[in-house]
Amino acid sequence: MKVGFIGLGRMGAGMAGSLLRAGHELTVYNRTPSKVRPLAEQGARVVPSIAEAAKNPVVFTMLSDDAALEAVVFGDDGLLRHLAPGALHVSSSTIGVVLSERLALSHADAGRRFLAAPVFGRPEAAAAGKLFVVAAGAAGAVGEAQALFDAIGQKTFVVSDRPQDANLVKLSGNFLLAAVVESLGEALALIGKAGLDRGRFLELLTSSLFDVPVYRNYGRLIAERAFEPAGFAAPLGQKDIRLALEAAERLHVPMPLASLLRDRFLTLLARGGERLDWSAVGDLARQDAGG
Amino acid sequence: MKVGFIGLGRMGAGMAGSLLRAGHELTVYNRTPSKVRPLAEQGARVVPSIAEAAKNPVVFTMLSDDAALEAVVFGDDGLLRHLAPGALHVSSSTIGVVLSERLALSHADAGRRFLAAPVFGRPEAAAAGKLFVVAAGAAGAVGEAQALFDAIGQKTFVVSDRPQDANLVKLSGNFLLAAVVESLGEALALIGKAGLDRGRFLELLTSSLFDVPVYRNYGRLIAERAFEPAGFAAPLGQKDIRLALEAAERLHVPMPLASLLRDRFLTLLARGGERLDWSAVGDLARQDAGG
Amino acid sequence: MKVGFIGLGRMGAGMAGSLLRAGHELTVYNRTPSKVRPLAEQGARVVPSIAEAAKNPVVFTMLSDDAALEAVVFGDDGLLRHLAPGALHVSSSTIGVVLSERLALSHADAGRRFLAAPVFGRPEAAAAGKLFVVAAGAAGAVGEAQALFDAIGQKTFVVSDRPQDANLVKLSGNFLLAAVVESLGEALALIGKAGLDRGRFLELLTSSLFDVPVYRNYGRLIAERAFEPAGFAAPLGQKDIRLALEAAERLHVPMPLASLLRDRFLTLLARGGERLDWSAVGDLARQDAGG
Amino acid sequence: MKVGFIGLGRMGAGMAGSLLRAGHELTVYNRTPSKVRPLAEQGARVVPSIAEAAKNPVVFTMLSDDAALEAVVFGDDGLLRHLAPGALHVSSSTIGVVLSERLALSHADAGRRFLAAPVFGRPEAAAAGKLFVVAAGAAGAVGEAQALFDAIGQKTFVVSDRPQDANLVKLSGNFLLAAVVESLGEALALIGKAGLDRGRFLELLTSSLFDVPVYRNYGRLIAERAFEPAGFAAPLGQKDIRLALEAAERLHVPMPLASLLRDRFLTLLARGGERLDWSAVGDLARQDAGG
Repeated sequence: MKVGFIGLGRMGAGMAGSLLRAGHELTVYNRTPSKVRPLAEQGARVVPSIAEAAKNPVVFTMLSDDAALEAVVFGDDGLLRHLAPGALHVSSSTIGVVLSERLALSHADAGRRFLAAPVFGRPEAAAAGKLFVVAAGAAGAVGEAQALFDAIGQKTFVVSDRPQDANLVKLSGNFLLAAVVESLGEALALIGKAGLDRGRFLELLTSSLFDVPVYRNYGRLIAERAFEPAGFAAPLGQKDIRLALEAAERLHVPMPLASLLRDRFLTLLARGGERLDWSAVGDLARQDAGG
Repeated sequence: MKVGFIGLGRMGAGMAGSLLRAGHELTVYNRTPSKVRPLAEQGARVVPSIAEAAKNPVVFTMLSDDAALEAVVFGDDGLLRHLAPGALHVSSSTIGVVLSERLALSHADAGRRFLAAPVFGRPEAAAAGKLFVVAAGAAGAVGEAQALFDAIGQKTFVVSDRPQDANLVKLSGNFLLAAVVESLGEALALIGKAGLDRGRFLELLTSSLFDVPVYRNYGRLIAERAFEPAGFAAPLGQKDIRLALEAAERLHVPMPLASLLRDRFLTLLARGGERLDWSAVGDLARQDAGG
Repeated sequence: MKVGFIGLGRMGAGMAGSLLRAGHELTVYNRTPSKVRPLAEQGARVVPSIAEAAKNPVVFTMLSDDAALEAVVFGDDGLLRHLAPGALHVSSSTIGVVLSERLALSHADAGRRFLAAPVFGRPEAAAAGKLFVVAAGAAGAVGEAQALFDAIGQKTFVVSDRPQDANLVKLSGNFLLAAVVESLGEALALIGKAGLDRGRFLELLTSSLFDVPVYRNYGRLIAERAFEPAGFAAPLGQKDIRLALEAAERLHVPMPLASLLRDRFLTLLARGGERLDWSAVGDLARQDAGG
Repeated sequence: MKVGFIGLGRMGAGMAGSLLRAGHELTVYNRTPSKVRPLAEQGARVVPSIAEAAKNPVVFTMLSDDAALEAVVFGDDGLLRHLAPGALHVSSSTIGVVLSERLALSHADAGRRFLAAPVFGRPEAAAAGKLFVVAAGAAGAVGEAQALFDAIGQKTFVVSDRPQDANLVKLSGNFLLAAVVESLGEALALIGKAGLDRGRFLELLTSSLFDVPVYRNYGRLIAERAFEPAGFAAPLGQKDIRLALEAAERLHVPMPLASLLRDRFLTLLARGGERLDWSAVGDLARQDAGG
């Protein structure tokens, strides 16, 4: 399939690589051109403008936040102006539900099609085609994109025909992950200050009740304080909790644990954690314990 | 092996049954005698006093809280007075670290031996011999008890030679479980109020990032509001969070998520949740959201 | 002085009345015309458009939130288009710092002048000319408006020459007031459930350590559950905590008590408290205590 | 009146001095004898044992915590054993409601009388006879002690005939004070990081809505970071929040703001704040904000 791909950070590059490996014809665009070289070597056609990437029946976007995606879509020389009639825009960025709704409406008004397809998984999973894809939008469009989802992911979940629902699911999932980090951080602060071995405690947990990579990996990162380089940077985590809280606020859903996470991320950023992995919020309990 | 067993609530009865099935000679005592009938039918010898249960080289206790265990051990006609010299008391109750320390000292002073061996798992796992056993105490004593742990559990983790360390690990594990309940409760409150299907959301989570029984089971209980009958009753959950916070307070370890859980449990009890499963704290976010 | 006044809710009407009493020539505009009748009887000239209210050397705005003020200022037939060159816009609404910055810039770009002058005090204080005025902006403009501030307030505090600083001070003050409500709510829940007399407890507090109207008034509202009619409605309180948190987020300042208040307000709104006084958040502790 | 006084820390010494000034005959005992010299010079009779201090119709105790008071009262050579029949013990320590109940019962059983009369005020107020006394117990006993309360305080509030009620009121009051500290700490962290002058912000607040010494004094301590020497040390503040939470737990009253304060105090102690004034918890928001 002919596919445009805009946004080649660590996640986007991995996804694009998986699409190439699956035999799709890829046209890629990134604001910072240096990042696309490895993809060019794998056979991607590199173009210097959104306009050219837009000349494909399907175009993926994978950008860091709402502002970046808005700039790409609604900019003067943006995607919405250059997509062909009937073309399909698949948005994999983790964005807020308000923007997702707005994108769905704007595309429909312009006679273009829009799917939200955010993904779960760290960059290594993106590169290996092992993401979990959470898709929402018109059934026909989902069907057309299925082969692409199969290339980037190990499984696709179709949530509903409203794109913003996929974004809400993604934000809720990231909230759950951050909750794992916080709970492990507090438990490890306690265990560590009591003089027990944190690594053995984690081994016990993850070979019994919590026998799942999420606990194993985040537990290790926290216990070893291995927060650099960031697999998923703290400012992105902060943004996701903010977006989850905004979605909850609109619906009048209080989420005290999400509020706690919000404060943790702000503390982390205030203490200079901009470049750390978001799991560094799991170290704050230890710091507060004077550990 | 000849084993005494004191405390035959849902967990204790399951563990005693597993010991019988493994061929051990069991003498059982429970304050409420009616509960021991099924065990008698399986071959246990039922005795009417702690003193008689104490006449065994190894005696398990599995009681609901610190006060109950203190009464059994230190009472005028209690275990400590009736254990034979050198006999081994294995305490599987979820108790506080302070009491565990005190028990270790008291037994040593009296020339008796003491192990803490709290367990992870719900009553069904106890009955099936599928618990996770967390043991701490003198290595020799752990070795002697290993065959018994093998009968009740699928795996034994030896933490250290200080009994209270096993209790701290158990309390930390229960904190992590309660954190799962709270985080799922908040996410499901959001997902539900947004009009998405809670069951499908859980299916997505538990067939991707959270593919582990803890999330599957607690998620289902919360989504279906299936809080009766209680597998683990709310007052016990409240007690465990209290004990975790007490252990943390002694070490000056602030645990804001544990504090949130503390308030949640008090709310649940204040609203009449005494008889509900502790996962009912996961319904409070929905209630606060007016859902 | 000739003064335009836009926004005649309970606060605005009281302020406008005070200006009239002090002898100022008032031209008033409100979207809902019925509300301006009492002011007309006191001598205000009522006009049917923002444009006409804008034809004054000084124009006050007192609106409920950011969106309302934006509509009045930036609308096609809005204030900015109709203010005379050099005219002064005094914004008394409780708005966010981002909007305040934007207003300052827009007015400067257009050659108009802008002051932020939010106020502390309930509607009765507004009607009595007893508000506390928190002003920020160019010193000359503050000087010109001083006579007007003297009419509406018992005291004026000049914060700085950056209008948004006055808004930040106002938001911080409202946060402190909401914190009083929450703390009283929790203490009264405890005192009440212990069977003590809540009124006498408050009398004790407010004739000793907390001998100040804020504690006396909010304490009484909470103890008597006198939340209707609202002096300051819950949705406005929720908005103010949101704006305080947004300001704090931009600066990476975690405010866990503000986060708690945020969740309290959402709970209040979710339970149908839209029309209650914001002090009704002080009743939630009692509700959670099953009281 | 002949009065015994046990416990001459900063608060107790001030109270004893006020009693002497009012003409009462004082017999004083302190575990650390050096502290009683200034009182001896003012005319107090210094005795070397609790037993001798107990030989008075009225005996005050003013000790730092539950354990200290228990040791004094229930010790082998303690107060309860040496008080004369019918003598009155006035307990001014800030203790838990459970201990207060137990003291009331023990004294009644022994034919002695017991009043709880905790006080509000810092050491300077104690020395000046300007405390607020919160008394509870049998009306007759309160009447007898009134002249003594008049000597130490500016006002006496009689709560009920159950001593523990006075302790609950005292704990609730200290919770409210700590809430003031936290709220000021968060507001000042925000104001300070925004570049505004913290002192002027406080001046504004305390000459308008919060015109009361509590806000003025704690605000100044926090803004100036003047936490040494401690007027009321952090470990005592931590203890009081713990006792308030324990009282609330017994009644199933969740108090999330008290939980936040609990975590704040633990953080302060973990970071080495043992010797700081309890208002140092108001500096933690600034620290978390990287300020």
